[in-house]
Amino acid sequence: MTTKMNVGIAFIEQKRLLIDHLLDKYLPAIDIYPNILHEAMRYSVLAGGKRIRPILALTTYELFGGKDENKINLAAVALEFVHTYSLIHDDLPCMDDDDLRRGMPTLHKKYDEATAVLAGDALHDLAFSLISQTGSAETVRELADAIGTFGMIGGQVADVEAEGKHIELQQVLYIHSHKTGALIRACIRIGAILAGIEGPVYDRLSLYGEKIGLAFQIIDDILDIKGDQKKLGKMVGSDCKNKKATYPGITGLKQAQEDADKLIDEAVAIAEEFGFADNHLKTIAYYIGQREY
Amino acid sequence: MTTKMNVGIAFIEQKRLLIDHLLDKYLPAIDIYPNILHEAMRYSVLAGGKRIRPILALTTYELFGGKDENKINLAAVALEFVHTYSLIHDDLPCMDDDDLRRGMPTLHKKYDEATAVLAGDALHDLAFSLISQTGSAETVRELADAIGTFGMIGGQVADVEAEGKHIELQQVLYIHSHKTGALIRACIRIGAILAGIEGPVYDRLSLYGEKIGLAFQIIDDILDIKGDQKKLGKMVGSDCKNKKATYPGITGLKQAQEDADKLIDEAVAIAEEFGFADNHLKTIAYYIGQREY
Repeated sequence: MTTKMNVGIAFIEQKRLLIDHLLDKYLPAIDIYPNILHEAMRYSVLAGGKRIRPILALTTYELFGGKDENKINLAAVALEFVHTYSLIHDDLPCMDDDDLRRGMPTLHKKYDEATAVLAGDALHDLAFSLISQTGSAETVRELADAIGTFGMIGGQVADVEAEGKHIELQQVLYIHSHKTGALIRACIRIGAILAGIEGPVYDRLSLYGEKIGLAFQIIDDILDIKGDQKKLGKMVGSDCKNKKATYPGITGLKQAQEDADKLIDEAVAIAEEFGFADNHLKTIAYYIGQREY
Repeated sequence: MTTKMNVGIAFIEQKRLLIDHLLDKYLPAIDIYPNILHEAMRYSVLAGGKRIRPILALTTYELFGGKDENKINLAAVALEFVHTYSLIHDDLPCMDDDDLRRGMPTLHKKYDEATAVLAGDALHDLAFSLISQTGSAETVRELADAIGTFGMIGGQVADVEAEGKHIELQQVLYIHSHKTGALIRACIRIGAILAGIEGPVYDRLSLYGEKIGLAFQIIDDILDIKGDQKKLGKMVGSDCKNKKATYPGITGLKQAQEDADKLIDEAVAIAEEFGFADNHLKTIAYYIGQREY
């Protein structure tokens, strides 16, 4: 298992470096007007991150025989830009009001609120310009629908509404599957669409995307609570950071971990159905399931 | 002239009613979750407006032989959604901090800032979902590039930077051609692309779009100043509303009106090149040039 894992990490790390290079390439240069905005966009996008979304799109595309590097690179970069735009707007004072992200000042702290709103808008927009350059209007629609009011934004509204309230597991599942899950599933689907995959295989890939998307968010919640426990000595399931609705806040940590493990196992089983020898979707599922290493 | 004008107004009014109907049709219903957001999106989009952008797209498409109503309707609605999204974000406290729009409370006043940011994001996004459903990735790119950092957002940044400063006509032209002009030109171009127009005719249509776009904004500035004069007895060219950079603020009202008239004449001349008997692009140019009636 350890050797396999190391190979897996090496593969993911290699993809991550490629994505970082591509993000830099497709971001507008700082010496082009409006310089301040391009600087702000670069600050947020290049602040680091696992780049799991573009890696999912790239991996799916390659695994299913996609050969046009330029096309999938455009889509991959668009997916990370959309993710960054959502973080910038989420951090705003009128939303989560966060001062730090990845240990650095959030964009509205580093610059100001107007710059943060506009830089988010600009990344949102640039994402659509880039993905349209794949020539596939279908991928544009997949992306737009995944992050609209029936996807990511719907989840964000539900999240804000749930703050500080007693909620049921059903609502947490809604929030997670929309706020995080929809975009992660879209990454897989966009890779598949560009590789020409449709029908039952497309549907199984979608299900794989749903499972890792939910597992990803549950594990994120678990790590948040563990981090809080370490830092603040908080009780499990008590008021978590920002009084946000969390999965383990309802089920408890142990059950949450078991549910995440089950989702990863199910995702791995789907990945195995495809019958590839070198199955990177399996690797990524394991990676998401154990992303603390 | 008067009869022609009346026919023109009737044509524009008829199109405006169609657009209002389509906007309502493509906006998510209030009884679907997230209800509050759909309510907010509807509040802003259905608050009225000249609908000049979608009318331009529809008119260009029809004039050049486009026959697929559904396709052009999707694009037309997308263009108005993008316009509304830009107004919602422009009105935010961290941007222009406006309390009223079209005589009604701005969205963040009616609801709150978080809802306004998200409703703007959601309209921005829904616009791309709809325009992607035309099947033309080229129109998606045209729209995205028109409203990104080298288009509308670039103009918005320049506008904010110019506030309260002494600026030259060159800068006002940059602001106007980007903040307003780029989207207006995109309306014409998207209508043309969907109608299958390319080459020299496409280029002339683009130029028509640039001319009416700039005229539109100069006249908007003139009307603003005249409104201010009436209301506040202000001197022409003195500190206009919000200390914004305006065209007549630099050239004076008389020169601004002459320049706008010249742009309209040039746009009309381009429209005449196309040789249509019933030339609605000419009608729209006149309408923009004299939109007080």
